Amino acid sequence: MTVKVYGPAYASATRRVLACFVEKGIEFEIVPLDLLKGEQKNPDFLKLQPFGLVPVIEDGDFTLYESRAIIRYYAEKYATQGTDLLGKTLEDRAIVEQWLEVEGQNYHPPLYTLVLQLMYYPKMGLALDHKVLEECEEKLGKVLDIYEERLSKSKYLAGDFFSLADLTHLPFTYYLLTETDKGYMIRDRKHVNGWWDDISNRESWKKVLQL
Amino acid sequence: MTVKVYGPAYASATRRVLACFVEKGIEFEIVPLDLLKGEQKNPDFLKLQPFGLVPVIEDGDFTLYESRAIIRYYAEKYATQGTDLLGKTLEDRAIVEQWLEVEGQNYHPPLYTLVLQLMYYPKMGLALDHKVLEECEEKLGKVLDIYEERLSKSKYLAGDFFSLADLTHLPFTYYLLTETDKGYMIRDRKHVNGWWDDISNRESWKKVLQL
Repeated sequence: MTVKVYGPAYASATRRVLACFVEKGIEFEIVPLDLLKGEQKNPDFLKLQPFGLVPVIEDGDFTLYESRAIIRYYAEKYATQGTDLLGKTLEDRAIVEQWLEVEGQNYHPPLYTLVLQLMYYPKMGLALDHKVLEECEEKLGKVLDIYEERLSKSKYLAGDFFSLADLTHLPFTYYLLTETDKGYMIRDRKHVNGWWDDISNRESWKKVLQL
Repeated sequence: MTVKVYGPAYASATRRVLACFVEKGIEFEIVPLDLLKGEQKNPDFLKLQPFGLVPVIEDGDFTLYESRAIIRYYAEKYATQGTDLLGKTLEDRAIVEQWLEVEGQNYHPPLYTLVLQLMYYPKMGLALDHKVLEECEEKLGKVLDIYEERLSKSKYLAGDFFSLADLTHLPFTYYLLTETDKGYMIRDRKHVNGWWDDISNRESWKKVLQL
């Protein structure tokens, strides 16, 4: 069964889902939405996703949103197909979940604000808020210092295996490196930089960027 | 095996874990930390939790942090013991995960800021930032409007069963109602209010509040 993915392929949260689908060898079809035209706020779409956010998946008559929930579902549903993204034991999965939460709660919020301001504010004619930018860079830097320590002892965040914990970092970290002048936050940390080179050179991520 | 829980029992994220443990009938022992003295930043504690945050659990030689990761692990490990908190099928669990993510990404951030400012700023002698408070109330209100619609059709967030998706809302919503003047955000929404009365009157939550 081909899974329908609503959301332009370039949207960061959609890319999180697509990277998972490519790793797992899941067939999908993208149903594009024009976010600039606000199609994610159309009544028909709000029936699928009441918050008006992408992505949403339709898999037969099953509908699901929130990218980090979608990748968990498919990693478990197709546990033995493609790349194992949850580890082999309950404890492996728990550590994957721990780092998924670290990403969602600690890493993503300051990174999101940095990328939003540096990437979009100039295009939208908005002034940068330098106080907020400094606070976010400081917060993200502290988180990355902990990542550096972790990755000095462990090849990937959850252990010696690539998992959802790593994959979930791809879309926004990619923006930090390619669309802002803050890439040194990754590049100047030896083990974070090596980890980034590893995970961003996976065939799955290269394919997602071409979609 | 008794699970050690580091963190004072009154800390909101610790309460999330304890509510899960009581629902599942898991034996635990609280190892108190004095957050006001900054014991969560002691070197010994940072070895367990490098971000310096509570709670952390120790279960034999297995250590785990991030409250939402801990509750997932125990809900799965003891799936057939105590209250079923993940549903019966993979699709049930996916919907539980969807609402766990909605809580973590959409509901918690504005609620956290509201509670932090209204509950702690006066005690710390800090001035309230009324612009930020207004923005957070507007954001949380929009999220609660979607909850109201959802809960008008479904007894609980993930379906007709109490789950981690509901449980994860308990600690901070409790503060909103008991420690701020914004309780009307819950009380004025009929179905959200009914849901809150239901989940906050569970024996597990009452027990957690007494610890």
